[in-house]
Amino acid sequence: MRHLVSAADLTRDEAVLVLDTAAEMAALQQREIKKLPTLRGRTVVNLFYEDSTRTRISFEAAAKRLSADVINFSAKGSSVSKGESLKDTALTLQSMGADAVVVRHSASGAAHRLAASGWLTGSVVNAGDGTHEHPTQALLDAYTMRTRLGELAGRRVVVVGDVLHSRVARSNVLLLATLGAEVTLAAPPTLLPVGVESWPCSVTYDLDAVLPKADVVMALRVQRERMTEAYFPSVREYSRRFGLDTTRAAALPEHAIVMHPGPMNRGVEIAGEVADSPRSTIVEQVANGVSVRMAVLYLLLGGALSIGGTSR
Amino acid sequence: MRHLVSAADLTRDEAVLVLDTAAEMAALQQREIKKLPTLRGRTVVNLFYEDSTRTRISFEAAAKRLSADVINFSAKGSSVSKGESLKDTALTLQSMGADAVVVRHSASGAAHRLAASGWLTGSVVNAGDGTHEHPTQALLDAYTMRTRLGELAGRRVVVVGDVLHSRVARSNVLLLATLGAEVTLAAPPTLLPVGVESWPCSVTYDLDAVLPKADVVMALRVQRERMTEAYFPSVREYSRRFGLDTTRAAALPEHAIVMHPGPMNRGVEIAGEVADSPRSTIVEQVANGVSVRMAVLYLLLGGALSIGGTSR
Amino acid sequence: MRHLVSAADLTRDEAVLVLDTAAEMAALQQREIKKLPTLRGRTVVNLFYEDSTRTRISFEAAAKRLSADVINFSAKGSSVSKGESLKDTALTLQSMGADAVVVRHSASGAAHRLAASGWLTGSVVNAGDGTHEHPTQALLDAYTMRTRLGELAGRRVVVVGDVLHSRVARSNVLLLATLGAEVTLAAPPTLLPVGVESWPCSVTYDLDAVLPKADVVMALRVQRERMTEAYFPSVREYSRRFGLDTTRAAALPEHAIVMHPGPMNRGVEIAGEVADSPRSTIVEQVANGVSVRMAVLYLLLGGALSIGGTSR
Repeated sequence: MRHLVSAADLTRDEAVLVLDTAAEMAALQQREIKKLPTLRGRTVVNLFYEDSTRTRISFEAAAKRLSADVINFSAKGSSVSKGESLKDTALTLQSMGADAVVVRHSASGAAHRLAASGWLTGSVVNAGDGTHEHPTQALLDAYTMRTRLGELAGRRVVVVGDVLHSRVARSNVLLLATLGAEVTLAAPPTLLPVGVESWPCSVTYDLDAVLPKADVVMALRVQRERMTEAYFPSVREYSRRFGLDTTRAAALPEHAIVMHPGPMNRGVEIAGEVADSPRSTIVEQVANGVSVRMAVLYLLLGGALSIGGTSR
Repeated sequence: MRHLVSAADLTRDEAVLVLDTAAEMAALQQREIKKLPTLRGRTVVNLFYEDSTRTRISFEAAAKRLSADVINFSAKGSSVSKGESLKDTALTLQSMGADAVVVRHSASGAAHRLAASGWLTGSVVNAGDGTHEHPTQALLDAYTMRTRLGELAGRRVVVVGDVLHSRVARSNVLLLATLGAEVTLAAPPTLLPVGVESWPCSVTYDLDAVLPKADVVMALRVQRERMTEAYFPSVREYSRRFGLDTTRAAALPEHAIVMHPGPMNRGVEIAGEVADSPRSTIVEQVANGVSVRMAVLYLLLGGALSIGGTSR
Repeated sequence: MRHLVSAADLTRDEAVLVLDTAAEMAALQQREIKKLPTLRGRTVVNLFYEDSTRTRISFEAAAKRLSADVINFSAKGSSVSKGESLKDTALTLQSMGADAVVVRHSASGAAHRLAASGWLTGSVVNAGDGTHEHPTQALLDAYTMRTRLGELAGRRVVVVGDVLHSRVARSNVLLLATLGAEVTLAAPPTLLPVGVESWPCSVTYDLDAVLPKADVVMALRVQRERMTEAYFPSVREYSRRFGLDTTRAAALPEHAIVMHPGPMNRGVEIAGEVADSPRSTIVEQVANGVSVRMAVLYLLLGGALSIGGTSR
């Protein structure tokens, strides 16, 4: 069985293999070799229990450039809403010959269940499960950092914002630790998860203290509806204390980059000027997402990579 | 004109040709020949007035494996909701060069209207019309029975449940009669349609009486909202009298198989243990669905088969 | 930059090139050459902020016949509903390597903004923006007229109905003027836009007066919800004064054709008998839509055509 469920499933060598392969994919694209025959006749199913057009079309574009057939299965309005279980859906996809199932689910652990179950002989790729993980996002972030800054070992990465509800933060911490970077989470106590002290990273409540030494600052998306008393006084107050405005950007070392997984709330967690500045990698991240997902599908379905917690 | 609207449109020879072709398709798939060039440049439109992700992706997978282009036309939120008639939609698809239109509609007879109209020069495939018919489901069921049990002539098939609202039951009865099987419907009187006595099958209210001689038991899906006083006292009572539990499964001959068109209500019309037991063909049915639909599209569009009530 | 935002962006020569190319595409289709390899490896994104299944599948069919990969991006339920700006969506599509973005938006000017922004290196094709323009509709209408009537110069075209809310009317007036046809708008004063007197066409409130000399009558779609006191007494009254019934059709010259962009309200702006009569081109218009959109994508992406207001 070969899956990508958690960023923690990847050894350092495996992670580097994905990044190197993504670089090859990007190089081919730039040489106008846009369509590779690699996965011709293979079927990739996008099984999305949550709407996420960006992630879905990134995987769809990646699969199509590898010549795979893509079937989009939006769980809304499907048998799922008639009460079909994850198991029966999986058996359906298995029977239809899915070679890879890219799954997005609101429940943390759904991708793991699917991968661990044995219901599928194809690969499971976690495209985001609840507040748990989003490993291809972490891979594309690492790829983007490496492209801009070179080797990641020893690099200082600050992840700022709502870590509590962020699968992006968790996957990034796990992957970056594997790759030898030093991660600091900057967030108010109410937006940090229980048990964060056991994560392989530092934590601070004071963003401004860590900016001058950062190589990378990654702003997480603010869910406006969460910026209520339960977590934080207000969106405005959040922006004042943790927003990446121009003053904070100016406090960064000259070479430092600014990242965001998108979609942004301009003026909330990041100022428009910062998002559009040369240090911003936000647009590259999207492009790199396609290359990284091409690499993941290529390695999983081509058999050159055997990863995933359930297979080890 | 060449269509598949009703299971009754198929002669015995035609039905056998579909099943034999499906077997060839399955054999090619197993030899890892996943993509056939047969329908390259042809366009298959999935015209779905009702949500049915399973059926839609089964047809989509079938068409793509034959190298057809697939266009999904969900009538929701389309011109249809602006009041466009079936006729104008058909003329649109015709003008766009649809070679086959796979239609799912909540109105019984919609597929027939489309096929009989002359609006389309391509093929119409009925993917379920109201409570009327679902012929490719019957074909995949027959294919599954034949794979497990050999020739169908003389085989005893029990179809149990809400026959009144089931297009699956009707199509199965018609096709199985053509193929020489003996079908018995097991249901309470309130869940049998008016005129069932003219169907080519037997009827019983006592499921347990017919199980010991059955080669096949097919449980129909229960629509929970229908298990109200109008049709039946309750879901629990239905389950007690007509549910395929382990006791009933044990009453079957050793070689007998258990079928379900999916999606299942585990614990209602079928127990989870029975659904997952070796006699269950539920997962195979889905896989066979793709092979059978490949065969139907191949035969209709390739011109080797000329079927359909309106063309004779 | 090469875009198609407005019918006014096309010179006469460019418009004729599109029509001639469309004719070649149609000829290839009729010779059963259904799939051209021209755009293999190119990605066409359908970015639809409004539902419009007809237009979407027409572009989808056109792109697939040119062997492009098509990604459908429905803005509903996407990041857009999480507040993502048009800019960030554009940057996302750019990063994913979209070679063409076909955009439908409820806001007039959205396509222009996208084309003028520089966010995209690919082509922008306006598939309808608010009440502003729908240039491929005008091109397919002109193509249809030319096929039926020959050269357009000097032809008399009457466009009847709700010009105020119609992007079809505006694009037709602009393109037909470029091609030398004489357009008359027939509508009540309340359904004409402010400034119509500066459009390159005539205006009349009396449909019956202009029918006897018309070569073409194009009925616009009535939005029933607009036929209230604000614009017009009632649907019935509209139909009586501006509906293309059999009496009015009989008043036309023998060679004159009747057009409608669809979807029709049979019995309101056009009688069923007229819509289905030999002078009606309504079904051809849909087929021609695919040929014209093939031509537009081919010319824009193939580089043989450089059009668009923002590029000049």
